[in-house]
Amino acid sequence: MRFFSDNAASVHPKLLESLVEANGQDTAYDGDGLSARLNGAFSDLFETEVEAMWVATGTAANSLALAAMCQPHKGVICHREAHIEQDEAGAPGFYTGGAKLMLLDGQGAKLSPESVEACCAAIRDDVHQVQPAAVSITNASEYGMVYHPHEVAGLAEVCKARGLGLHMDGARFANAVATLGCSPAELTWQAGVDALSFGFVKNGGMSAEALIFFDRELAADTHYRRKRAGHLQSKGRFLAAQILAMLEDDLWLDNARAANAGAQIIAKAARDRLLYPVEANEVFIRLSTDEAAHLRSIGFDFYDWGAGQARLVTSWNQSVEDIRPLAEAIASL
Amino acid sequence: MRFFSDNAASVHPKLLESLVEANGQDTAYDGDGLSARLNGAFSDLFETEVEAMWVATGTAANSLALAAMCQPHKGVICHREAHIEQDEAGAPGFYTGGAKLMLLDGQGAKLSPESVEACCAAIRDDVHQVQPAAVSITNASEYGMVYHPHEVAGLAEVCKARGLGLHMDGARFANAVATLGCSPAELTWQAGVDALSFGFVKNGGMSAEALIFFDRELAADTHYRRKRAGHLQSKGRFLAAQILAMLEDDLWLDNARAANAGAQIIAKAARDRLLYPVEANEVFIRLSTDEAAHLRSIGFDFYDWGAGQARLVTSWNQSVEDIRPLAEAIASL
Amino acid sequence: MRFFSDNAASVHPKLLESLVEANGQDTAYDGDGLSARLNGAFSDLFETEVEAMWVATGTAANSLALAAMCQPHKGVICHREAHIEQDEAGAPGFYTGGAKLMLLDGQGAKLSPESVEACCAAIRDDVHQVQPAAVSITNASEYGMVYHPHEVAGLAEVCKARGLGLHMDGARFANAVATLGCSPAELTWQAGVDALSFGFVKNGGMSAEALIFFDRELAADTHYRRKRAGHLQSKGRFLAAQILAMLEDDLWLDNARAANAGAQIIAKAARDRLLYPVEANEVFIRLSTDEAAHLRSIGFDFYDWGAGQARLVTSWNQSVEDIRPLAEAIASL
Amino acid sequence: MRFFSDNAASVHPKLLESLVEANGQDTAYDGDGLSARLNGAFSDLFETEVEAMWVATGTAANSLALAAMCQPHKGVICHREAHIEQDEAGAPGFYTGGAKLMLLDGQGAKLSPESVEACCAAIRDDVHQVQPAAVSITNASEYGMVYHPHEVAGLAEVCKARGLGLHMDGARFANAVATLGCSPAELTWQAGVDALSFGFVKNGGMSAEALIFFDRELAADTHYRRKRAGHLQSKGRFLAAQILAMLEDDLWLDNARAANAGAQIIAKAARDRLLYPVEANEVFIRLSTDEAAHLRSIGFDFYDWGAGQARLVTSWNQSVEDIRPLAEAIASL
Repeated sequence: MRFFSDNAASVHPKLLESLVEANGQDTAYDGDGLSARLNGAFSDLFETEVEAMWVATGTAANSLALAAMCQPHKGVICHREAHIEQDEAGAPGFYTGGAKLMLLDGQGAKLSPESVEACCAAIRDDVHQVQPAAVSITNASEYGMVYHPHEVAGLAEVCKARGLGLHMDGARFANAVATLGCSPAELTWQAGVDALSFGFVKNGGMSAEALIFFDRELAADTHYRRKRAGHLQSKGRFLAAQILAMLEDDLWLDNARAANAGAQIIAKAARDRLLYPVEANEVFIRLSTDEAAHLRSIGFDFYDWGAGQARLVTSWNQSVEDIRPLAEAIASL
Repeated sequence: MRFFSDNAASVHPKLLESLVEANGQDTAYDGDGLSARLNGAFSDLFETEVEAMWVATGTAANSLALAAMCQPHKGVICHREAHIEQDEAGAPGFYTGGAKLMLLDGQGAKLSPESVEACCAAIRDDVHQVQPAAVSITNASEYGMVYHPHEVAGLAEVCKARGLGLHMDGARFANAVATLGCSPAELTWQAGVDALSFGFVKNGGMSAEALIFFDRELAADTHYRRKRAGHLQSKGRFLAAQILAMLEDDLWLDNARAANAGAQIIAKAARDRLLYPVEANEVFIRLSTDEAAHLRSIGFDFYDWGAGQARLVTSWNQSVEDIRPLAEAIASL
Repeated sequence: MRFFSDNAASVHPKLLESLVEANGQDTAYDGDGLSARLNGAFSDLFETEVEAMWVATGTAANSLALAAMCQPHKGVICHREAHIEQDEAGAPGFYTGGAKLMLLDGQGAKLSPESVEACCAAIRDDVHQVQPAAVSITNASEYGMVYHPHEVAGLAEVCKARGLGLHMDGARFANAVATLGCSPAELTWQAGVDALSFGFVKNGGMSAEALIFFDRELAADTHYRRKRAGHLQSKGRFLAAQILAMLEDDLWLDNARAANAGAQIIAKAARDRLLYPVEANEVFIRLSTDEAAHLRSIGFDFYDWGAGQARLVTSWNQSVEDIRPLAEAIASL
Repeated sequence: MRFFSDNAASVHPKLLESLVEANGQDTAYDGDGLSARLNGAFSDLFETEVEAMWVATGTAANSLALAAMCQPHKGVICHREAHIEQDEAGAPGFYTGGAKLMLLDGQGAKLSPESVEACCAAIRDDVHQVQPAAVSITNASEYGMVYHPHEVAGLAEVCKARGLGLHMDGARFANAVATLGCSPAELTWQAGVDALSFGFVKNGGMSAEALIFFDRELAADTHYRRKRAGHLQSKGRFLAAQILAMLEDDLWLDNARAANAGAQIIAKAARDRLLYPVEANEVFIRLSTDEAAHLRSIGFDFYDWGAGQARLVTSWNQSVEDIRPLAEAIASL
């Protein structure tokens, strides 16, 4: 059983069905009937007027959002272990035209208002230093921790005072919402978020993520930038279909709850080994080389996270029965 | 019945089936078993060792190919009506980091060796003028005309003499091969092409195109650039699946033949109105405003191509029965 | 005697003197006393509040102005033979982050309101086509012709209606003003110009040009971009000194008048050979290969401008006596 | 007396004289006789064939060198306090088209082979992480410390093993050579440096720095990039003149020795306050707010370097008599 990545999990059958249903003839690009429903569907979900667009990857969503907020000669404040810094091959630099990521530390890959404020304060207000234009946070974070609405609001306050945009990388936004029990609105625009990369692919999706602009002025140019980046697919209706299927009857939330529940089973079994609180679907544990080898030898796959550490990721389609053997194996190490 | 664009057509059922089949768990990105088969499948098809990678759009394929061939301070020679110039929102400028498209004229959106050579000769060899690094041609062209292998070879000769890369935008490559009856090898690397954007989406595909490097040295950095552009999808196996389904039993060629046959029916009916020879699945005709309105009033949809002209595009899934009413309506105008 | 380029001419002695005078110790970059005087000096000259900054080259001035007006995914409309297109090695593409130059024709390298409007009208208002953001004109033009204030105003009217910025490349702005006898204000902001590259180097300067923003909002980010481009010289006082010396007692205008007068002497002698009206300090004439060889054999240097054509450029420091021999030699061909 | 920055110092009279001498008519750009002498002059100085070009600023020299070594999707390893990271407004990101600076720690703003190797080793060799392409070091460093030839060679060894280019930011290269007493060759190409930004402006120059390529293959495209960046001045002979004047009779070395000697006087007086060894012309000391205020009140100007710290920079034109009062004032604090 694989706990390597939620990217490796299968696609929810309802999404595949939605592709079959979408397979009539329709207008190309995003001129089709399904794409036309996205703004409404997300505005309903977020209880405010938003502008939504599909893209194929979280990297594209993140980079388009940042390019909308940050001119080429400016910077984006993020955590040193943020996905945009560590795992996107420099995409923000490409999309923004050379903007700089300004890297902060913080427990569990989370930023604090204090660290952001200190970063800004340390930058001389002259033309020799790159000035920040935006802050990007990941919720749930790269270490599986969540920002609570009040934490986001604290960051947004600094952003507002400093004139910075606030972007949320929500590759696992669903997992955060599932854990927090709050509304999507409370965790985003009501707390001051300007744009959200709303991830579906790790949560049972196939090839469609959503980029949500709460600050709709940022969206206008993004339509051009999306095309310019080769991300305006000519049969976009198949991306819209996936997203709409995810939103229907809160499938996105059900999937995230299932994955989170799996992580809790592991967390309980590994409670003495936890490196971070388990607040989403990722479990980081201390694990010696021998222990790791043993777990692999009995059929479990996962990611080595540096020396003596491992990352275990649960997925929407793993049941309690799937996970219990791993939990028991860890408990009996 | 729509003749507006082959992008509007439906997806071939075999591709949707391939997605269901691909829906096990597998390694993320392009580490899966299906993606691993692409190089072999295309090397077989092209009868030489190639490096192939999936991307979601032709714009991404074209731009990645050009970025591999052309540094930011150089230029790409193409036709004034090339898709990369007219319809990709400046994507080549984005991917190359600011390279210049050098626009040539030519009947049917085709370049000739003479026009390319004249363009190169007119550029002063000094640092004040942008120097060309590549030539990009579209086959079949934006006006539905094909380059024969010997025409491609003629262009490649100039490229070789001038040290330029040669890229083929093959959004309708299948249609060109179907018309010419040549092998894919004859039309590409044997004629001197370095990289090909091999289109599937207009030909019954959903969301996967292939970027083929005959000059495999160009591929190495492209893997990084693809990721950096947000085009390395995390469940890439679903793109590979589509492409493999297209290659199986030459589905790509069957689809193109069907679309081409449809275009011939219209061409025959509209032979006194043709603006260009019909060599693929696009028919450009003279059509007055009144005539256009009449055709629309009886249920045909198509693209107005400037004053008194129209573009009619046939698709893989349109049968003779589908097309005959349009042909008859045009003939009786 | 060289008539090859006004770039080849010597520097006016008053500018070299200004360097000696500036050679005390002062604050670095543009924090010095001389740089601080630029805004005031140019505001006086242009009879309105402007923001002015020194840069070393016209290419830098042009590109910074265009980058301020045009986002990476947009375009700049200019003449096909504009310096920014022909002779700046793709600098606008570099500075803007990949924006596109949209090339128009027009007599004497001049744009007309009609041609700009037609260009805009032909661009589909969708995300597939690059949308224009600015127009750039050169005054005096690359063929030594001037735009009159009412011509500039006509272009500005189209720009305003279309939401485009208007940039004037004034590498030979002084020559244009000298010819027209109008005020600098009349030829620029009063006619609707947003930013001007005010050239001094071709007009007796050494290494300082001025970038003038009439729309001062465009200037704010340009200070950062100038630094980012490596154009914020650490001893900027020596650039400011040159410019202030040029402005003192209208030296810039005297120099331009002298160069223009020289061109008129040649124009008169070559009146049957003129390719364009001579309205600045450049004379384009028909000249056979034999005639060109003859002129060179008796000591005159100039630029071959394609087959059977030549460009003769006069400079600030060429007296009537310097020029008469050339005029006589041409007259007696 | 100002100890704020060597950028604030005056220009050596010989350079101003060289401008007067250069003021004949000559070919524009770098086609003049003086520019033509640069390759030879620097090849003599470095005892090997080099390619040299003038630029106006160290930022331009650094960025052009890095762009020649590092493609847009790669990275440059440098110190966290490197000038290219801290004080160039993101210029490397601009010139490279979005490459990433990878920031290391190290005493005195110096890198060690171990830290560079550790940085490289920590980067996963996959397409998700930006791969390094070059290392940039500053000699003398931002804290006035020098790299000895064997230290450079140690870094070059890692670079060679990892396939990285090695760039030296030599804004104060003269000061480093003066301190070390080695030859310019020993400190650069003999130790493995591929390109050097050779600074003159801080050392009595006005507006000309030299970019030296020991790896001459890197130079070819840089000629285009320099033009494209607006750094090919049309009267380049005045930049060449300055540089040649600096090289004549080792003026560059004399100036640096004078500045270094001044720093030693201060260092001796402040020996209990030193934050770093004084190895060039910069002195970093502990200095309380009150002490700083006192020094300023009696006429000394300098840079506050964070809380309780100050930076004092000596210049080529400050004599022992100029500096002694400061030394005495510090000693008697």
